[in-house]
Amino acid sequence: MDTVPRLRGKTVVLSGGVGGARFAWGLARLLPPEDLTIIVNVGDDFRHFGLYICPDLDIVCYTLADMEHPEQGWGLADETWHAMAMVERLHGPTWFRLGDGDLGTHLERTRRLEQGHSLSAITEDFCRAWGIPQRILPVTNDPVRTVVLTREYGPLPFQEYFVKYRTQPTVRGFHFRGAEQAYPAPGVIPAINEALVVLIAPSNPWVSIDPILAVPGIREALAGKTVVAVSPIIGGQTVKGPAAKMYREMGIEPSALAVARHYRDLLQGFVVDLRDAALASVIQQELGIPVLITDTWMQPKPKRAQVARSVWEFAHTLARTYP
Amino acid sequence: MDTVPRLRGKTVVLSGGVGGARFAWGLARLLPPEDLTIIVNVGDDFRHFGLYICPDLDIVCYTLADMEHPEQGWGLADETWHAMAMVERLHGPTWFRLGDGDLGTHLERTRRLEQGHSLSAITEDFCRAWGIPQRILPVTNDPVRTVVLTREYGPLPFQEYFVKYRTQPTVRGFHFRGAEQAYPAPGVIPAINEALVVLIAPSNPWVSIDPILAVPGIREALAGKTVVAVSPIIGGQTVKGPAAKMYREMGIEPSALAVARHYRDLLQGFVVDLRDAALASVIQQELGIPVLITDTWMQPKPKRAQVARSVWEFAHTLARTYP
Repeated sequence: MDTVPRLRGKTVVLSGGVGGARFAWGLARLLPPEDLTIIVNVGDDFRHFGLYICPDLDIVCYTLADMEHPEQGWGLADETWHAMAMVERLHGPTWFRLGDGDLGTHLERTRRLEQGHSLSAITEDFCRAWGIPQRILPVTNDPVRTVVLTREYGPLPFQEYFVKYRTQPTVRGFHFRGAEQAYPAPGVIPAINEALVVLIAPSNPWVSIDPILAVPGIREALAGKTVVAVSPIIGGQTVKGPAAKMYREMGIEPSALAVARHYRDLLQGFVVDLRDAALASVIQQELGIPVLITDTWMQPKPKRAQVARSVWEFAHTLARTYP
Repeated sequence: MDTVPRLRGKTVVLSGGVGGARFAWGLARLLPPEDLTIIVNVGDDFRHFGLYICPDLDIVCYTLADMEHPEQGWGLADETWHAMAMVERLHGPTWFRLGDGDLGTHLERTRRLEQGHSLSAITEDFCRAWGIPQRILPVTNDPVRTVVLTREYGPLPFQEYFVKYRTQPTVRGFHFRGAEQAYPAPGVIPAINEALVVLIAPSNPWVSIDPILAVPGIREALAGKTVVAVSPIIGGQTVKGPAAKMYREMGIEPSALAVARHYRDLLQGFVVDLRDAALASVIQQELGIPVLITDTWMQPKPKRAQVARSVWEFAHTLARTYP
């Protein structure tokens, strides 16, 4: 990887969980660490067993530190499960799998939060301990909670919808509880202001990126910037997660076009996969923005840097052309 | 063990941590399960990393379930430490060692407490899951917190005194915060009322038994009963823990005599170790109660049943003679 020529220029990524984490990992291979800030969704955060759990922040950190489980999209590699085995023996809930090492993260985060430290300060400190030189910021230190409005169960906290009910309930809408009262975490707005480009990772628009955009001040800060989004939907499907299903249940045909429309007010450019080449001109015409057609498939692992490079260079070209 | 003839008669044990747990284990070998109720100190309970931890209840349960670590006096056998390793990597506090399996207990207990279940109901349910047929009751479901008044640091929460500062600070006194407002847990007073004998385990009088006795209603219930205590101090020393040091710092020569005086208002009988045979007549004269001189050394493990049998039979004799 060290033979890949380095790029330069302050870059912000808006990220949810695994897709954003992998995309950010790719960028981290290309950019000097001080040029990369990853702003992460906290709408999935929740309390479980009294512990404060941040699924998106954790998978972004674990991925950037090369500690993540290689396949499952959450948790650590080489994890053990003794705490969960005891919970199971005690007939406790095991739908949210907490590995022993991962528990250490939640324990120490919870302890510090209760001492009054902010989530962003804790995350910064954890990144230092894990040897992550890039900046990873929760979008806000205030509680923003994604609520999924479902037909079968009414409003569900995100993790119940996502993990407990395995995204089975029919989605009717979303609500980001607490978002209107939230403030961007320290560093978030300055990072966007200083960024040459802002990249929206191939994360779920409904439940990973929208809760970031729902924090007052974020959309305003993005207004003047070169914002480029990568479609998480390829050939009408998602690589991981329920985005396509959500579009369908919201009455929208899932496609890269639907994603581009989702972000339409924000975008200076859009990236679709090779398999969606046919949609590029439709998007280009309808939104009046350039569309990059490129291979966005991030497996195997080294390919993430290739995807990141294509997207970054595209955005960088736009940044020099458009602002 | 099954060849040991069984005893009969409702028995209550007042217990702290490891000493009481081992004594109760011995009794559990002799009595039908429905005849044994263990009332456990909660003054050591505390919140750590957001979790609700009950050191005495846990070691009593782990010991009765034969899951306890054979030497260290706390925690599970065959424990792993991956969560703590992560906490350590994140520069969190590691003075209170939480094993991975043990964490499962704290996680599920904390979850249920937050759902509004009582500690006694949770403990009952955990005992069922662990296959413990005896009844283990926290003395109260209300928060009673042992505070150790120290010369060097002023008032210290018990676990900080005990684990963090390794019982080094000089003790000036004790305070059981919340005790006056506490109610005995459901089942505690009826168990004492129905008991033929109440045995005070060889636990620390200052910080294991006194916080039990500090709960309003306990002393009153004990008043009419055949109460027998086992000295945790043998030859001026404690088998485990800081009881002897505490007596010294409170200006009292640590001895079985000091323990007998400690409980003087409650006792119908007292048990000293063979090594303290010389003190027996002093205690007998001063307190006017019978004293049993017997081997109270509870190692190796099977000897616990021997100790329990001697103490129980002594108390049983008194119960038939005195009430």
